[in-house]
Amino acid sequence: MTVKMNRQILLVKRPSGMPDESDFKLVESPVSTPGEGEVLVETHFLSVDPYMRGRMNELRTNAPQYLLNEVVTGSAVGRITNSRSSLFNPGDFVSGTLAWEDYSVTNEKNLRKVNPLLAPLSSALGILGMPGLTAYFGLLEIGKPQPGETVVVSGAAGAVGTVAGQIAKIMSCRVVGIAGSHRKVKFMLDELGFDAAINYKIPSDIRGSLARACHDGVDVYFDNVGGEISDAVFALINENARIPLCGQISLYNVGQTHGGPRIQSQLLARTALMQGFRIGQFADRFEAARAQLAEWLAQGKIKQSEHIVEGLENTPRALIGLFRGENLGKQLVKVC
Amino acid sequence: MTVKMNRQILLVKRPSGMPDESDFKLVESPVSTPGEGEVLVETHFLSVDPYMRGRMNELRTNAPQYLLNEVVTGSAVGRITNSRSSLFNPGDFVSGTLAWEDYSVTNEKNLRKVNPLLAPLSSALGILGMPGLTAYFGLLEIGKPQPGETVVVSGAAGAVGTVAGQIAKIMSCRVVGIAGSHRKVKFMLDELGFDAAINYKIPSDIRGSLARACHDGVDVYFDNVGGEISDAVFALINENARIPLCGQISLYNVGQTHGGPRIQSQLLARTALMQGFRIGQFADRFEAARAQLAEWLAQGKIKQSEHIVEGLENTPRALIGLFRGENLGKQLVKVC
Repeated sequence: MTVKMNRQILLVKRPSGMPDESDFKLVESPVSTPGEGEVLVETHFLSVDPYMRGRMNELRTNAPQYLLNEVVTGSAVGRITNSRSSLFNPGDFVSGTLAWEDYSVTNEKNLRKVNPLLAPLSSALGILGMPGLTAYFGLLEIGKPQPGETVVVSGAAGAVGTVAGQIAKIMSCRVVGIAGSHRKVKFMLDELGFDAAINYKIPSDIRGSLARACHDGVDVYFDNVGGEISDAVFALINENARIPLCGQISLYNVGQTHGGPRIQSQLLARTALMQGFRIGQFADRFEAARAQLAEWLAQGKIKQSEHIVEGLENTPRALIGLFRGENLGKQLVKVC
Repeated sequence: MTVKMNRQILLVKRPSGMPDESDFKLVESPVSTPGEGEVLVETHFLSVDPYMRGRMNELRTNAPQYLLNEVVTGSAVGRITNSRSSLFNPGDFVSGTLAWEDYSVTNEKNLRKVNPLLAPLSSALGILGMPGLTAYFGLLEIGKPQPGETVVVSGAAGAVGTVAGQIAKIMSCRVVGIAGSHRKVKFMLDELGFDAAINYKIPSDIRGSLARACHDGVDVYFDNVGGEISDAVFALINENARIPLCGQISLYNVGQTHGGPRIQSQLLARTALMQGFRIGQFADRFEAARAQLAEWLAQGKIKQSEHIVEGLENTPRALIGLFRGENLGKQLVKVC
């Protein structure tokens, strides 16, 4: 009898600054067997997300800390190969918090069934998963975009940004995306239909480019990146602007001491609102939001974009790629 | 026939940093005569307020710029001595935006009648005026304090802070006031009934003092001051904290380049809300708010505190005193 083996990726060192592949280690052990109420899931796609960086720090940020020498956890989709749950049968496709491994044993409560006929399996990690829901609630509940308003999205070619910008277009807003390459600018203009797109890495005056793109000022700023790009946007906010704070990826690999201009005076002068949010706050409305996003997807009003790396062993590299801005849309790892 | 003379205080130089008495000039000219729809008001009390500093700058902030060599305008109460309005009779007491002068000619539309039998005349500039309404709407509409929550108020011994803290007490919150002298601390504890009070000028660890005073963290931070005091409060905010931005007095006399720690990561980690506001946003609800404040005042649930300087000629000094922290409660100038 051959024992089926499971590869796992452990966090073995807390990154200092940008994560490095040497912070992780691939190990192998026999696949576990599910207990009562548990299932065995074969991982198909893993999601790597910017928030994971915070969980790797000694001090926790807005999610529980990852433990050293344990397998890294995150959102994933897969197929059930063994079930001791009355809720799931072998062959069912599921999504939930799994781990960076080939096979996960997990409790039935952690999983949600996914119908791969309704939308591609991977969309459960993108537009119909955490990134899509994040864009949906952050933009609509905090940003509250009105027709004709100008909505600026930073990190606009990423998993959340692409959806936030497209929802703003559905809401009849003028949408200006900021990202870090010519390819992303072209993608935002040609594929996503944004009204303007700015490559912040072009060594020019980002404030000038923004001012030209936002000739009527900025009503909503969906902020994924923080730092100096955001400083440039704050200078343009209109009266009663809304700033949903979704992420601050530009600062995740920077130490605690990072400072910048104080923004309170600008918020005060413009009677603007800034609000940090996490998707868990809206958990009781996920199903309705997923239904709306799925409808927009089916109608072609939102396009899905994915950046897929193949092979479990390349998961750390895919995560590092996020901070290097390598992804166009949702960054995924195809495991199986 | 003697011509009645009017003293006026002009802004003759834009202050650099802290305003100086030499930025102002007292001039004298005959009292004007009201035209159709206008009245002549004898100034009784003038209000000096921190927001005036911004209006003295070259670049406007959140209120129109004061013009050089013109009389400074601001909230005032007075008595009508000559009327060409069908709305007001000589002898009526009124409040509105008047000027730093003994007698103002103004349009009837700029004034509101005040009944000096209901509350002391000066309260129209304090608890029943702009500062009281600012505290009321900022705390209740943005801060949304819930019973048992901890509310921290900075600039807590000032015109707005004293009212914000007392309303938070009425809402059954734990109230922690921050101000800049021992006398103010004693006043907040003994007179206003705050639960704790911190003198930020004591050369000790403000973060430590705050942490001890806010043992359950901070749910609402009513911010009048900004800068390093606020940085210390931000470190203690709880999940879903609300931060009404009312003023940033610590920075009004500081240049544009002033920076500090970026607070977005904290707002994000705590899913907190920060919102700048101006009282004009709530103008359609002033009367209801005034009625509530007057009721609390009559019931003794809110105490009024005023710091009165005598003489129009001392108005610039009274304004400068605000930034030196000389006032306990509302800073007023008694003109007549």
